[in-house]
Amino acid sequence: MAHITLPPGLPGIRGPMAFRPETAGPLNELVDVLLQGPHTLSKGERELIATFVSARNDCRFCQTIHGAVAACHLDGDEDLVVQVKEDPERASISDKLKALLVIAGKTAESGKSVTAADVELARRHGATDLEIHDAVLIAAVFCLCNRYVDGLATWTPEDPAYYRERAPLVAENGYAASTSASPKQYDSA
Amino acid sequence: MAHITLPPGLPGIRGPMAFRPETAGPLNELVDVLLQGPHTLSKGERELIATFVSARNDCRFCQTIHGAVAACHLDGDEDLVVQVKEDPERASISDKLKALLVIAGKTAESGKSVTAADVELARRHGATDLEIHDAVLIAAVFCLCNRYVDGLATWTPEDPAYYRERAPLVAENGYAASTSASPKQYDSA
Repeated sequence: MAHITLPPGLPGIRGPMAFRPETAGPLNELVDVLLQGPHTLSKGERELIATFVSARNDCRFCQTIHGAVAACHLDGDEDLVVQVKEDPERASISDKLKALLVIAGKTAESGKSVTAADVELARRHGATDLEIHDAVLIAAVFCLCNRYVDGLATWTPEDPAYYRERAPLVAENGYAASTSASPKQYDSA
Repeated sequence: MAHITLPPGLPGIRGPMAFRPETAGPLNELVDVLLQGPHTLSKGERELIATFVSARNDCRFCQTIHGAVAACHLDGDEDLVVQVKEDPERASISDKLKALLVIAGKTAESGKSVTAADVELARRHGATDLEIHDAVLIAAVFCLCNRYVDGLATWTPEDPAYYRERAPLVAENGYAASTSASPKQYDSA
């Protein structure tokens, strides 16, 4: 049971977002710019960074929904998502993304863990300043989201079908557009 | 030196915010709603939560600027800010704020660390669901900001005068209005 009374039937971050639409608005906008906006990293790559950080932070809801959204952007390749979560160094992804995941993972530990050598490696594999910036900020944003979801003990659906059904809506329309803050639109899944 | 090339002369979070105004906009809006919006917790109390979490995360820039803004809202009481950072249980603050700081500190460790007993204690001291929600979200947002500032190795001014001079501007006008994203408005302090 969640630590506070949240609108019923909304899993994960959607409960507190409906409870507090004033903060949900800018938070969804921030996530949309980072994960859905125009970028030199693909949407799939950015969702993999979000998924990886959420897995490191052991946030079941975030790693599962963002893993499902990542798979939508990666032609349904759920195995690749599992690889990235479990052992990114051996995953079938670019060396650049591997280096950005190292930066993201260290950001999640503590910003101070990121070293000049980590950044230099990413740069050697072709990462731009913007890509390095966004790897850090995506990791930092998911350190927020993971703590928001788990700090309020929100409801995490067990059924993988929930995430598979919701992911294409988010992949297609973005986070702000997929998150209802209106009570009459609460759904049960 | 910062890990990426940032606009010159802007300390802490202001450098990456000027580098990436598309994400700075919603992030400042989120912080303004939480720390400056209408609330049953005073602005000073909310800035103390931000300062406490930033101190726990050992982020020099964030704990110093938010500590200075907190002091502005608390009739200049810098000693109280130090008390809260060092030993909140013995600080001259309400039992409700002490209980909210426990929740915020645990959120910063991991959302999963927050227990039903922590929330019950806050409620017993009069905390509402909104106050509990916002204690968690303020803590989560500063877990973002601290990692953003330190993950990019941004410049942290050593001189306390920087923070004392800037704090009243922020306390008066809020974060969005005090953060220039326009290159021509970069300043040197």
